[in-house]
Amino acid sequence: MKTKLQQKIDLKTKPIGALGMLEKLAHQIGSIQNTETPILNNPTLVVFAGDHGIANEGVSAYPQEVTYQMLFNFLNEGAAINVFSKQHHLDLKIVDAGVNFDFEPDQKLIYNKVNHGTKSFLNARAMSAEEFQECLQKGRAVVKDIALQNTNIIGFGEMGIGNTSSSAMLMSYLCDLPIEDCVGKGTGINEQQVKQKIEILQQAKTFHGDLNTTEEVFAVFGGFEMAQMCGAMLEALKHNMIILVDGFIATAVFLAAYKMNPEIINNAIFCHQSDEKGHARLLRYLKADPILKLGLRLGEGTGCALAYPLIESAVNFLNDMASFESAGVSEKS
Amino acid sequence: MKTKLQQKIDLKTKPIGALGMLEKLAHQIGSIQNTETPILNNPTLVVFAGDHGIANEGVSAYPQEVTYQMLFNFLNEGAAINVFSKQHHLDLKIVDAGVNFDFEPDQKLIYNKVNHGTKSFLNARAMSAEEFQECLQKGRAVVKDIALQNTNIIGFGEMGIGNTSSSAMLMSYLCDLPIEDCVGKGTGINEQQVKQKIEILQQAKTFHGDLNTTEEVFAVFGGFEMAQMCGAMLEALKHNMIILVDGFIATAVFLAAYKMNPEIINNAIFCHQSDEKGHARLLRYLKADPILKLGLRLGEGTGCALAYPLIESAVNFLNDMASFESAGVSEKS
Repeated sequence: MKTKLQQKIDLKTKPIGALGMLEKLAHQIGSIQNTETPILNNPTLVVFAGDHGIANEGVSAYPQEVTYQMLFNFLNEGAAINVFSKQHHLDLKIVDAGVNFDFEPDQKLIYNKVNHGTKSFLNARAMSAEEFQECLQKGRAVVKDIALQNTNIIGFGEMGIGNTSSSAMLMSYLCDLPIEDCVGKGTGINEQQVKQKIEILQQAKTFHGDLNTTEEVFAVFGGFEMAQMCGAMLEALKHNMIILVDGFIATAVFLAAYKMNPEIINNAIFCHQSDEKGHARLLRYLKADPILKLGLRLGEGTGCALAYPLIESAVNFLNDMASFESAGVSEKS
Repeated sequence: MKTKLQQKIDLKTKPIGALGMLEKLAHQIGSIQNTETPILNNPTLVVFAGDHGIANEGVSAYPQEVTYQMLFNFLNEGAAINVFSKQHHLDLKIVDAGVNFDFEPDQKLIYNKVNHGTKSFLNARAMSAEEFQECLQKGRAVVKDIALQNTNIIGFGEMGIGNTSSSAMLMSYLCDLPIEDCVGKGTGINEQQVKQKIEILQQAKTFHGDLNTTEEVFAVFGGFEMAQMCGAMLEALKHNMIILVDGFIATAVFLAAYKMNPEIINNAIFCHQSDEKGHARLLRYLKADPILKLGLRLGEGTGCALAYPLIESAVNFLNDMASFESAGVSEKS
């Protein structure tokens, strides 16, 4: 039997299903909020930044210092995510989860540093089990604070040179896929460099061998920004927020959060399918149907910010469009 | 050699090409406006409505009176296009191009009626050559007025029960494709009805035989709302506006405008690939790469309205993002 929510969607002045993806979103959001008149409160975007030991092993097009330089760029409102957050009135928070740089105190920065970057997982565990747990807690704390502002929709972005490599490892282990299915050109390495990246990551798989739990895989290969994002996603679920999932890295983090608590899928909106090679496959694994496919490969939460107005449109049509009856329009003959 | 515009895009603090589609849009808009600092002025959306004789031949899921009923819905701000235009502050204009209903004077309605609906093209020409020319002029006049408000970006929508049939005929003749490649389920007919629609349209092709010019094809099969939109698109080009192309019907109209003046392609942004069967093929014919694929099949200009914030994002990143130099970020190693 049709839910009242689905009935309301179907009786709007349009052919059944004619708003496509927006109808699915309206149904999902109404279901999350258990209402036929959902609202989006104080939409927030949190960007977690952290450094990766693996970045120094020849897997990335950019040097590690770009992480802290980009963090300054975020604070100075010069990055893509600043521009798009401002456009859509998203409350943007920047978190130092573990950048290899000591920032002066800055009101705009959430100082959540666990360490000055992870170790290279080529020959060590990226972080200890304790550091991983600390990340989960610190990520949760960020969202707990945000929940006090009545935020009910939250997106997550990341900055960390090397983190497509970490994400590829998470995907390879947690989806049980060969590493070459999970590796792409990241911020822009060429084909020869992609081959090298695959070789390096294969070496790391050989070095670490089988791992038993999601938590262990995450600690061995993950980044501090990724682990904090994972805690933040789990906390967002606890507050029944709508969770906006960005590109490849955020989806790999989401995958881990999903393994820890499968219910999180109900609250997740997949915002953008990135050009990064593994992302389409990872989304298929999660049976996710992303809103946008703009060929972005930037991270920072840009996919979330750009998809936001479409999510808002889904809520708006549900609340504001006339029904056949109220508008006096004839139904299908 | 790279243009200055492309250089500016490439020096923003992001990997080369990492904003995907938005970079293409920024380049196109900068090229149209011949500047590295484009602006979007008074964005406007015009919805043309008209009735079709063919609607009474069993090609549509809805009765003809839905056209005028939906026009009232537009005027009362209850339709999807009202909701989305309001969300994005688009100036929405509604035009009666040839609806089979006499509206009382209403300040919100542009009274551009050419006739009370077209004739059924199953056994007559939908409109005369004179009516077609009148439509072009009336469509142009709407845009001439809008140009006085300094509008430099304009989208077009339509409402007209039966107009996917008209559009399929335009596509079939102007792209030289069999009718079955151009026909879909419109507002929601079933498979059996699609077969019937194809048969009816094939009969019409047989009845009218070869036709010599784009103008003749348009007059024989088109709708008043479509012909006025065609004039409006050509006038928008004359004012060097950015032209937002909506779904299947608007793209079929654009195809005709393109045959009349191929330069129009430079100013066109294809907003959404609809679920209507012929649309993907038609976009391929035009070598168009649409921004969104949300599975909409509604018309009204909804694809334009929903894509608008992404077009704005393209302009915003070009104007507001920092460059590597200004932000002190290291470039690719």
